[in-house]
Amino acid sequence: MKLNKHYLDLKDSYLFSTIAQKAAAHVAAHPDAQVLRLGIGDVTRPLPPVVVDAMTAAVADMGAAATFKGYGPEQGYPFLRESIQSYYASKGVSLAADEIFVGDGAKSDIGNILDLFDKDNNIIIPDPVYPAYVDANVMDGRKIYYIDGHEENGFLPMPDALAGQDVKPDIIYMCSPNNPTGAVYTHAQLKVWVDYALEHGAIILFDGAYECFIGDKSLPSSIFEIEGARKCAIEICSLSKMAGFTGVRCGFTTVPHDLQFDGQNLNKMWSRRQATKFNGVSYIVQRGAAAAFSPEGLAQCHENISAYMANAEIIAKTMKELNIWHVGGDNAPYVWLKCPSGLGSWEFFDKLLKEAHIVGTPGAGFGTKGEGYFRLSAFNSKENVIEAMNRLKKIL
Amino acid sequence: MKLNKHYLDLKDSYLFSTIAQKAAAHVAAHPDAQVLRLGIGDVTRPLPPVVVDAMTAAVADMGAAATFKGYGPEQGYPFLRESIQSYYASKGVSLAADEIFVGDGAKSDIGNILDLFDKDNNIIIPDPVYPAYVDANVMDGRKIYYIDGHEENGFLPMPDALAGQDVKPDIIYMCSPNNPTGAVYTHAQLKVWVDYALEHGAIILFDGAYECFIGDKSLPSSIFEIEGARKCAIEICSLSKMAGFTGVRCGFTTVPHDLQFDGQNLNKMWSRRQATKFNGVSYIVQRGAAAAFSPEGLAQCHENISAYMANAEIIAKTMKELNIWHVGGDNAPYVWLKCPSGLGSWEFFDKLLKEAHIVGTPGAGFGTKGEGYFRLSAFNSKENVIEAMNRLKKIL
Repeated sequence: MKLNKHYLDLKDSYLFSTIAQKAAAHVAAHPDAQVLRLGIGDVTRPLPPVVVDAMTAAVADMGAAATFKGYGPEQGYPFLRESIQSYYASKGVSLAADEIFVGDGAKSDIGNILDLFDKDNNIIIPDPVYPAYVDANVMDGRKIYYIDGHEENGFLPMPDALAGQDVKPDIIYMCSPNNPTGAVYTHAQLKVWVDYALEHGAIILFDGAYECFIGDKSLPSSIFEIEGARKCAIEICSLSKMAGFTGVRCGFTTVPHDLQFDGQNLNKMWSRRQATKFNGVSYIVQRGAAAAFSPEGLAQCHENISAYMANAEIIAKTMKELNIWHVGGDNAPYVWLKCPSGLGSWEFFDKLLKEAHIVGTPGAGFGTKGEGYFRLSAFNSKENVIEAMNRLKKIL
Repeated sequence: MKLNKHYLDLKDSYLFSTIAQKAAAHVAAHPDAQVLRLGIGDVTRPLPPVVVDAMTAAVADMGAAATFKGYGPEQGYPFLRESIQSYYASKGVSLAADEIFVGDGAKSDIGNILDLFDKDNNIIIPDPVYPAYVDANVMDGRKIYYIDGHEENGFLPMPDALAGQDVKPDIIYMCSPNNPTGAVYTHAQLKVWVDYALEHGAIILFDGAYECFIGDKSLPSSIFEIEGARKCAIEICSLSKMAGFTGVRCGFTTVPHDLQFDGQNLNKMWSRRQATKFNGVSYIVQRGAAAAFSPEGLAQCHENISAYMANAEIIAKTMKELNIWHVGGDNAPYVWLKCPSGLGSWEFFDKLLKEAHIVGTPGAGFGTKGEGYFRLSAFNSKENVIEAMNRLKKIL
C-alpha cells in the first residue's frame, strides 16, 4: 500500500498548539498572574436563548418515538436551507434553497470541496491567511502561488499581486473579512476579482466565515452581491462566529447552479460528494441553526456580535492612541497590528506574554507576509479586553 | 480550472433514491394501503433516555457563560475517547485513547480516510457490499477489484476470491457484520485476512458499523481481536445503529500506533488530516455518545438492539418456513435472501411492493453479485414486521 506522499510536505508545527504550549508554560511559571487570552479566534459568549430552546426541544424530539428522526438529507434539512436562503435574501442575494448545502463547519467544507478539483490546478492563496487553505492543498500536492498582503494594499491583495509570477490562476482563495487581518474587500475590489476569475476560467473559493461582523452596509458580505459571481464562485460560511457555534458545529456552502465547467454542474458534483462521504449534520444542531436565523435568533446573535465588536473598537482605539499601524477591528473581530519597535511576530508574542500576561497570535503563523505583525482578537469579555489594553499601554 | 474528471465515472443512479421514488409512486397510486418499510437501514426507535438527558444537559451547558464550550479537540473530547476505550476493553481489546478518533459518522470517516492513501493503490472490495466504498474510490480514480460473495462462501469472500485476478492487494475493505448480507466473519476467517494483509503489505479498512448486533460471543466484533491486526488495520465504527444515532451523527475510527508504512505513522497522519479538514464533533453529541457508553446507557442501547434482533429472528424464521435460502438475521439486523422463483432483485422488489405493499432493498443495488438477492431490514416495529411476514407468506 502506498501512502499519500504529499503529507511529507506538510510543515510540522502547528500555530495554535505552539501558542497553547507557550501559554501553558507561562501559566505554570506564574500561577498567580491573570493571563488574558486574545489569541485563538474562538467565541466566548454562550449560545442565544432561542438556540438553546430549539436544541432542547430537538433533543426531546429524538427521545420520543412519534418525533424521532433518523437519517436526514445529506445536504441539509429543507427547513434550514430555506432559513439560510431567507438570510441571504435579507442581504439582497437571491439563491435557490438547493444551492445551499448545510455542513458541519467551514473548515470541513473548505477542505472537502477540493475533492471536486483535479490535482493539476494552480492555487492562489493570499498571504497572510487562515493556514488550513495551504495545508489542505499541500496534502493533495497542488501547486500554490501566493498573493501578498502588505501595508500598501491594506492586506487586501488584488490580481496585480500575481504580476511577474507567470501563472494561470485556477482556484483562488478569498477571505473577507480576512482572517487574520480583519480587512474587508469593497464591492469594486470584489468585482475586479470576479471579472478576473471569469476571464481566466478560474474559480473563487470565498470564505465568508466572518461576514456577520460587517456593520458597514456599503461593504459586501457575500461574493454573490457581485455581478458574475454565480458563474465563478463558491461561498463558504459558518454559524461559528455568527451564533457562537464553534463547539456546536454547523456551516453552509453555496454552490450556484450557474457554476459550470467543462459542461459539468458543480452543484450536482458537490451534492454527490456529500451523499457519498457525508451523512448530514445532526438534526439537533440543524434545529438550533434554524432558530439562529429566525428574527428573534438574529436579534440575539446580534447582541453577541455587538459585544465582540465593542471590544474590537476598544482594541483599535488603543492602537490609534499608541500610534501603532493596524487594520481590522471595524468590520471584523480581529485587529491586525504592526509589531512595535521592529519586533518579530514571535518576539512580540513573547514580550506580551512575559510583560503583560496577554496571549495573542503571531502574524507569522498565517504566512511569511505576516512576519512583523500580530493579531489581537475581540473574543473575550469587555472587562478583560479593557484590562489587556491597559496593560498594553503600560508596557509600550 | 480543471475538474476532478473521475466524477464522470460515477454511475448516475442511486439505489435508495430509486427505491424512494418507486415507493412514493406506489403510495400515490394506493393511498389506502399500509406500506411497510423494511428497506433502508435506518433505526426507528427513539434515543435511550440517558442519552436524551445527557444531551439536554449539554445544551444547557452551552447556554450558560460558565459552562459554554467553544472549539473542542478535532480528534474528540478525552471523556468520549476514554468511554470508547472502555467499551473496547469490555470486548478484551486494549487500545490507547489517542488511537480512537471521534468523527461525525462512519460514512464520513470511510470516505475521508482515503485522503491518506496514494491514488495508485489497488482496492479490494467485496461484492455485494455498502456502495459508498466503491463510489469514494471511483471519485479518486483508484482501480477496484471485487471479491465475490455467493451462496457457496456464505457471502463471506476469502482471499482465494482474488485468485486469477493477478492483482497486488493494497487496500482491502471488509464489512462484518456485512451490509447488506448480515453475514459475519469468524475469528479464523479474519485471521486469514490479517495474515494475508501482512504478507502483502496491504491495509484492511474494517467497517464495524454493525458490531453491536453480534450476540454470539464466539464471533469477533472487532478486527483488533485478531493477532497482527494492529499492524494492518483501521476500524471504523458508529453509534448510528448501536445507540440510534443516525440523525444525531457520531462515529469513531481506530488507527493503531503500530500502523506504520514506509516509516510513516498513520495515526499521526489521520490526526493531521482531521485537524486540517475537520473541526470535531458537536460537544452536545459527544456528551450524548459518552452517555450511551455508560453502564446504564449500554443497558438501554441493548434493549433497542434486542428489539431489532427479535424482528430479525421473525424474518429469518419466516424464510425458513418458506424454504427460502438466506443468511444474516442471527447476528445482524439484515436478512439476505435469494429471490424466490428465480426472480431478479428489482422484479422481486416490484412484486413485494405491488402485491404486499412492502418496501425492501434489491440486492443488485449492492453490487453485481447481489442480483437475484434481496435485503430485508429489522428496523421497524415488531407489529409491522409480523404483519409484513404474514403478507409475504400469503403471496409466496
